[in-house]
Amino acid sequence: MVTVALDAMGSDRGPEVTVAGAAQVSLSPGAPDLVLVGDEAVLRRLLLVTPHERARVRVVHAARVVAQDDKPKEALDAMPDCSILRAAELVARGEADVLVSAGNTGAVTLACARTFARLPTVQRAALGAVYPTERRRGPKDDPFSLILDAGLTLEVSADDLVAFAIMGSAYAKVISKNERPRVALLSNGSEDGKGTSAVVEANRRLRAIAGEHLEFIGNIEGMDIPKGTADVVVTGGFTGNIVLKMLEGVAETVMRLGRYAGDQSLRYKAGLGLLMPAVKKLRQATDWEQYGGAPILGFDHLAIKAHGRSTERAVGNALRVATRAARMELVRTLRESLEACRA
Amino acid sequence: MVTVALDAMGSDRGPEVTVAGAAQVSLSPGAPDLVLVGDEAVLRRLLLVTPHERARVRVVHAARVVAQDDKPKEALDAMPDCSILRAAELVARGEADVLVSAGNTGAVTLACARTFARLPTVQRAALGAVYPTERRRGPKDDPFSLILDAGLTLEVSADDLVAFAIMGSAYAKVISKNERPRVALLSNGSEDGKGTSAVVEANRRLRAIAGEHLEFIGNIEGMDIPKGTADVVVTGGFTGNIVLKMLEGVAETVMRLGRYAGDQSLRYKAGLGLLMPAVKKLRQATDWEQYGGAPILGFDHLAIKAHGRSTERAVGNALRVATRAARMELVRTLRESLEACRA
Repeated sequence: MVTVALDAMGSDRGPEVTVAGAAQVSLSPGAPDLVLVGDEAVLRRLLLVTPHERARVRVVHAARVVAQDDKPKEALDAMPDCSILRAAELVARGEADVLVSAGNTGAVTLACARTFARLPTVQRAALGAVYPTERRRGPKDDPFSLILDAGLTLEVSADDLVAFAIMGSAYAKVISKNERPRVALLSNGSEDGKGTSAVVEANRRLRAIAGEHLEFIGNIEGMDIPKGTADVVVTGGFTGNIVLKMLEGVAETVMRLGRYAGDQSLRYKAGLGLLMPAVKKLRQATDWEQYGGAPILGFDHLAIKAHGRSTERAVGNALRVATRAARMELVRTLRESLEACRA
Repeated sequence: MVTVALDAMGSDRGPEVTVAGAAQVSLSPGAPDLVLVGDEAVLRRLLLVTPHERARVRVVHAARVVAQDDKPKEALDAMPDCSILRAAELVARGEADVLVSAGNTGAVTLACARTFARLPTVQRAALGAVYPTERRRGPKDDPFSLILDAGLTLEVSADDLVAFAIMGSAYAKVISKNERPRVALLSNGSEDGKGTSAVVEANRRLRAIAGEHLEFIGNIEGMDIPKGTADVVVTGGFTGNIVLKMLEGVAETVMRLGRYAGDQSLRYKAGLGLLMPAVKKLRQATDWEQYGGAPILGFDHLAIKAHGRSTERAVGNALRVATRAARMELVRTLRESLEACRA
């Protein structure tokens, strides 16, 4: 039985959505056990009026909460009794298997860093994020690729990129059921020698490691990102964050540029009108918040970070991803992969 | 009278397109003088069969040419008589005012570095590239913003970013006739403290410099790039290159994702069909090669780099941009701006 520790206070929309998401998950077949961490009185009050499976849900009190705009270090130093730390401690103690939070990303990561240990060879953690691509894969026609780091480690070394590649590959294997995820480094050129010094060195080492445990396909460039050429795209957090935010804007971008194209004719407007339903679907497809949450990879316990503005549905998806990762022993796979590829 | 030195051999499509582009420009009102540098026999043969204004066009011989896949340093060391070096030397000696080439970007840049001097405070050169945005500005409804560095300086210091900001602003003032270009740093967050150490430091210094000579609006994020919030987007060459290549793919991306949206209904297909003319225009809008060429900024002489696959039209546009920059004394403006903002 998997137990998920949910930081129920860490959400822009308040505990109403986290409780609602957890309640909905608790009622599903194959539900995990759920520990909601936060202001006990508030949470119990919400649970009273939200249908849920009582046998699956319990509450652990935490008096304080880190706000979205708090500085992580200062907040955690000042509030050892905040919900994210308490939730992380449950996982560290083995009372829960995995952590989920929609709170302040820096605080969630720092809580992990202070409470968990790092996996072998890992110096910096990475946030993984899925995004939709042109390419479908697997029996479910999955369009998603994974990019990491999405913004935790702004300036990366070659060691970091190598660890991200190995962990990203392991995550894709477990979560996407992709037996051999294609892993690439993002660079300014496809040739092996192209890139910053960290990228060039990481490329060299990944070429050497590639084999049974890692399908490294080399470098990809910016235009390859949406194609899905790689199942796992590896880059530093600064670049990864910028790339993902650009992707988030892509549907709006083209509609706006389409207006720029300046064709005000009836023909164009009619076309646009007919296309809107598909464009709406497109917007949903590029709306990550519904796709379940981003794994924080690098620690000996897994944390899933849901978007701060997560809806009840997005929280539920994050809980489902966390449950699946725990059931499939993702951390064990991460550890084994990192050990196997140790230089 | 402005004189443009054109490396006539540096093009994937061969000297036919460079000669054709130059010939067409020579016949336009307000044409510059054009010096075509390359294999004299080949160029004269092409000119014989290409209508051009004889008074405006002359040929200077260069026996060798750097190939697109040559390593720049090795090629320039081995071939001091190559067309790009000869053309750069003409500019350095004052026999021409500005350099244009569609050749190997690394070789063009290295030829500049070996032949020209750096402007005050500049340590690394930047390649500027225009891209279309949602926002229109000026009397001509100009949709374009400038991003630099597009890929010459992969790993940047704060000093580099500050110089890029000042030069990008000066270029936008002169070329886009924008009296007060809005300049921003690209970062993983809009707050001043967000970014790599170089970005945070550059932000601090640009805030201090901002004023009469520089309209610094702070940091922008990935989703702001296509909006045109900033007229000049400043980033390191690694990130800039990735961003531009992603933008190049944006029209294709959305069409592909549109197919993913999976709406196979007649309604959707009809919509797509009606929209295609506008989408085609959109593709053209995001097809940089026709927009004239990218300035290499940082040296005391200007070079305009046209895309390797430039058509005759794109070469012509690059020559026009070069002529305008020289007429408006861009290098003087660059120098003055850098001096004025010297720490």
